[in-house]
Amino acid sequence: MIVVMRKEASQAEVEHMVERVQQLGLKPHVIVGVERTVIAAVGSESKELKESLESGPGVAEVLPILAPYKVASREVKSERTVVTAGSFSCGGKQIGVIAGPCSVESEKQILDTARAVKAAGATALRGGAFKPRTSPYSFQGMKEEGLKLLAKAREETGLAVVTEVLATEDVPMVAAYADVLQIGARNMQNYRLLEAVGREKQAVLLKRGPSATMEETLLAAEYILDAGNPNVMLCERGIRTFETHTRFTLPLASVPYLHAKTHLPVVVDPSHGTGHTYLVPQMAAASVAAGADGLILEVHPDPERASSDGYQSLNFEGFQKTMELCRRVAAALDREM
Amino acid sequence: MIVVMRKEASQAEVEHMVERVQQLGLKPHVIVGVERTVIAAVGSESKELKESLESGPGVAEVLPILAPYKVASREVKSERTVVTAGSFSCGGKQIGVIAGPCSVESEKQILDTARAVKAAGATALRGGAFKPRTSPYSFQGMKEEGLKLLAKAREETGLAVVTEVLATEDVPMVAAYADVLQIGARNMQNYRLLEAVGREKQAVLLKRGPSATMEETLLAAEYILDAGNPNVMLCERGIRTFETHTRFTLPLASVPYLHAKTHLPVVVDPSHGTGHTYLVPQMAAASVAAGADGLILEVHPDPERASSDGYQSLNFEGFQKTMELCRRVAAALDREM
Amino acid sequence: MIVVMRKEASQAEVEHMVERVQQLGLKPHVIVGVERTVIAAVGSESKELKESLESGPGVAEVLPILAPYKVASREVKSERTVVTAGSFSCGGKQIGVIAGPCSVESEKQILDTARAVKAAGATALRGGAFKPRTSPYSFQGMKEEGLKLLAKAREETGLAVVTEVLATEDVPMVAAYADVLQIGARNMQNYRLLEAVGREKQAVLLKRGPSATMEETLLAAEYILDAGNPNVMLCERGIRTFETHTRFTLPLASVPYLHAKTHLPVVVDPSHGTGHTYLVPQMAAASVAAGADGLILEVHPDPERASSDGYQSLNFEGFQKTMELCRRVAAALDREM
Amino acid sequence: MIVVMRKEASQAEVEHMVERVQQLGLKPHVIVGVERTVIAAVGSESKELKESLESGPGVAEVLPILAPYKVASREVKSERTVVTAGSFSCGGKQIGVIAGPCSVESEKQILDTARAVKAAGATALRGGAFKPRTSPYSFQGMKEEGLKLLAKAREETGLAVVTEVLATEDVPMVAAYADVLQIGARNMQNYRLLEAVGREKQAVLLKRGPSATMEETLLAAEYILDAGNPNVMLCERGIRTFETHTRFTLPLASVPYLHAKTHLPVVVDPSHGTGHTYLVPQMAAASVAAGADGLILEVHPDPERASSDGYQSLNFEGFQKTMELCRRVAAALDREM
Repeated sequence: MIVVMRKEASQAEVEHMVERVQQLGLKPHVIVGVERTVIAAVGSESKELKESLESGPGVAEVLPILAPYKVASREVKSERTVVTAGSFSCGGKQIGVIAGPCSVESEKQILDTARAVKAAGATALRGGAFKPRTSPYSFQGMKEEGLKLLAKAREETGLAVVTEVLATEDVPMVAAYADVLQIGARNMQNYRLLEAVGREKQAVLLKRGPSATMEETLLAAEYILDAGNPNVMLCERGIRTFETHTRFTLPLASVPYLHAKTHLPVVVDPSHGTGHTYLVPQMAAASVAAGADGLILEVHPDPERASSDGYQSLNFEGFQKTMELCRRVAAALDREM
Repeated sequence: MIVVMRKEASQAEVEHMVERVQQLGLKPHVIVGVERTVIAAVGSESKELKESLESGPGVAEVLPILAPYKVASREVKSERTVVTAGSFSCGGKQIGVIAGPCSVESEKQILDTARAVKAAGATALRGGAFKPRTSPYSFQGMKEEGLKLLAKAREETGLAVVTEVLATEDVPMVAAYADVLQIGARNMQNYRLLEAVGREKQAVLLKRGPSATMEETLLAAEYILDAGNPNVMLCERGIRTFETHTRFTLPLASVPYLHAKTHLPVVVDPSHGTGHTYLVPQMAAASVAAGADGLILEVHPDPERASSDGYQSLNFEGFQKTMELCRRVAAALDREM
Repeated sequence: MIVVMRKEASQAEVEHMVERVQQLGLKPHVIVGVERTVIAAVGSESKELKESLESGPGVAEVLPILAPYKVASREVKSERTVVTAGSFSCGGKQIGVIAGPCSVESEKQILDTARAVKAAGATALRGGAFKPRTSPYSFQGMKEEGLKLLAKAREETGLAVVTEVLATEDVPMVAAYADVLQIGARNMQNYRLLEAVGREKQAVLLKRGPSATMEETLLAAEYILDAGNPNVMLCERGIRTFETHTRFTLPLASVPYLHAKTHLPVVVDPSHGTGHTYLVPQMAAASVAAGADGLILEVHPDPERASSDGYQSLNFEGFQKTMELCRRVAAALDREM
Repeated sequence: MIVVMRKEASQAEVEHMVERVQQLGLKPHVIVGVERTVIAAVGSESKELKESLESGPGVAEVLPILAPYKVASREVKSERTVVTAGSFSCGGKQIGVIAGPCSVESEKQILDTARAVKAAGATALRGGAFKPRTSPYSFQGMKEEGLKLLAKAREETGLAVVTEVLATEDVPMVAAYADVLQIGARNMQNYRLLEAVGREKQAVLLKRGPSATMEETLLAAEYILDAGNPNVMLCERGIRTFETHTRFTLPLASVPYLHAKTHLPVVVDPSHGTGHTYLVPQMAAASVAAGADGLILEVHPDPERASSDGYQSLNFEGFQKTMELCRRVAAALDREM
């Protein structure tokens, strides 16, 4: 870390900080500049150490140098992680495609969708059984009944099942049915839940919170990895900005950025990332071009009658066309889809 | 709701939507404009109905008219709610002041702080026993040991205890010690947790998520109210914006806005809202001037050696001066503090 | 417009607003809802009318229905505008590629770059002669000397010249040398300048301001169109958000969104949009996949010694590889590049 | 500056960067850390030097240490600047109050307003004669006619006149009538205009751009100061964030932050900062409590009939009450108003 002293810091304050750096187990290097002094503190870094130094007298700011995430870092493991769950694979040459409705609504709805997305080339089925809803008065999902229908759809189509788990106490039940446990954006920093899925053997799809930085997202992944589960996929699903013509702003530069920083695969969600069906195909294609390892897309037999997220869901024909578009881009970049 | 049709929408599409509006139990009024048609859909509103209409053919957008929160709304209950918990009161003439360290660290630390903040005029003691930390490698709190120390500090000073609960499974334990259950910003949309504290009788301090809209915040409160607990305080603690000179951006207009929309009291957290000790006194005073019903402030005997958040904590002298400043503003506005 | 009355609005207030709507030349339709009354005001819409109604007694909000931009709107002209300037074309099947240094620095620098980007497939040359710099102490450009060097590079390579004009008084001089006048992001709402370039016959590349909404961007274009210049290209170059790992956040959904709303071509700037050379190739490819009509890319013979923006500039080899990548994606989507 | 090398940087890359640092006239200090090497580059700092180093091989990032603004910095001049213009003073014990309509509309309107705001305690009159409007179809101001009316109002009431200048070519005309030249938020980075007002002797009110950082704002002030005009006031008027319940988000922590960094006075604009009349009084009071040196408030005889910004304007009675509220807070803090 670099401890930058204020211009007007006294010699006594500089000496105090040099001592603090030593007390904290770091090695100080004092650099007297033209306008102010900085102290390089060599050794390990942590949020605690940084915060402690920031509170010191005469300190202007403390600049960290090392990334705070360890296991997720590409500096630790340079080869990419490939996450596999039944029919689904993500992180290698093949681009994984997770498709299905926002919520499981009925046997017919989920089975029809599973068949349609499988036929169009999806490699996993999504469907919410436990739904986190902004309003307590909204439909909250079919719960275990929904999980059973997902399992039935897997039995018939062979598609791996991706579904959200939203509370620690539900982890065993959801893990009994799902191939991939999804952590929703609202729960990205629900650390108890991250630890719970970290103790499972299923792969985890970790969605970025709408105002989470890249560092916070990687540290959330670190909770899961640290608990013993190495099969983590990160999902960019859009961030909250001043823009209102889209539901969220989908920052695709996350994909190459994360590829540079971590070995974990990166999935993109153009449905939530735009919030409008008509923007989904182009943004799915753009995600593939940006190097995404996977896509997660909302598909519904009849979006107008969906119990949630219809305005951003593709119907079967729309999904098929989106797949064709993406496949052309993937082929041009030597990826498979 | 107002269903705005696209300019190029066909007559058939308009008719389809009129029919849909009726099917959904609403009464349609068709208004043929100069450039396009809109359909006013009179009746109840919900996110589901809105989403369903948005998915319709020829629809440009759907504009909601009613606020989606019911119990929290000032239109339902116009007199302000006063939340009382032991020594602490908030929502009336008196401004509640919650002060204490980010984390409980030791008996001496919490007792010294409790005495100091009580002497300076605080009406409740804060202190984290269960800490949600961005990194899995950071100090996670003293857990039940910390709760016991908080209870001891209450016993000695009479200050009500405010402490965070971060998981459903911890609610009974935390509720056994605390007077006010705090829901942290990261958990604002952890609905299962909201329901759990909604079933308790303790007051709840609900912190706004860093990218939550006012509507989402009020709907989170609605989860608690709907579960049966009317003693909810909202806490503005800063939002995530492009600004980097402060840790978060503290939007004090939330205070008068919320006072116009809801009967629940509004507390402000200038410590997290700025992230820098030197900005806290002025922003505390500004919060009082904006009409805040309460303040929550981080205070530590020795911020430089705090195990978390030292850079935004006041020491005892700083807290006392901040209280003097705020009291002058409060008195000028006929509030008590 | 829809005038939404407050729940507690009196009958007199509703009547007052009905009268106001009539006074403003609009036709009122009163719709008495379950909880509140709304008044649909049919007729023309403008910011003035909206603001006036918003100030009325008992009014909760006023919801506009029509887009405020007229000439730029796709509802007015459904076929896409193709902008052509010498060697450069944008808006049709061909994707225009503008490449070159941030600043013109010397004859050798600009000629070498022009030859290299031409060889790699660029269709226009960019280079700043007048530079808007955040700090008054930074290099401000070679001014007319730089324009002459750009013209020389055009003479030799045949590439159209794209360069920024940053003040009304410079428009005639810059227009004497340039094929495309660029309006920088900082000047997007410099209306006098927009009007000035609107009176020229050169094509205009209008960059989106970092916090401009889509509507504000289209209204800025409207200033140019309204002044008589139909050759306007919009440029998405990234917005300011809480993200810090990129210089700006590049929201590619702007491309399909703008294609739905306007007939003007859409260019993307992945150099400013990311601020890091290593993220540019993937984001350029993603822009093409999202349907961009053009790209603008910073290229420098020796980025490390560039007088500005070196950290986001490609060197010649990097540009060539980026072009190959983009061409593969373009070909897959039946575009030419 | 601190040059942080990538973990995998080679010895040759480190040596190359040491050489570069020397070539750029800085003195390198190499610090070999546990995981990576950093090079402290001691000497002057500038955006150019930083950018150049960032483009070097093996460089992860470059951390600046010095503030890039010189003349505006409090490290250069620690006593506060007091700006005086006729009846108006700002930066000392007295809080300056600028009040008046968004646009000058008629003689009666501006004279009535001038009398009313003077009676209620304003020390300067605002009023737009040249209006920058988002849409080309909106009212653009009365131009010189408006300036004459402002001068007439000054003659009668003695109030100093504050009015916006929006183009370099208008500076002489506006300066002939105004006591304070306002630079609007859209023009904060219109550097030619900043230089032009920097050559005048009138005081300047520089509004922060809606997505400008504090550093960019101070550098914009630096353009004016550097051109020779020391009478600059900074104005916080709200930033663009994801919030929609207010027109902008008003971050009052700017006030104490700027007081720590610069000697220039800080004015707050709660009218634009909130965009809603009913939020203005509390936010004006909060601004005073945060330590603002001045307020600028929109006041109109009949907001419902204002030609612009009526929804955020106070009427005469509202202004008077706001002044009373603010005066109470000011008195409590030993300020005059």
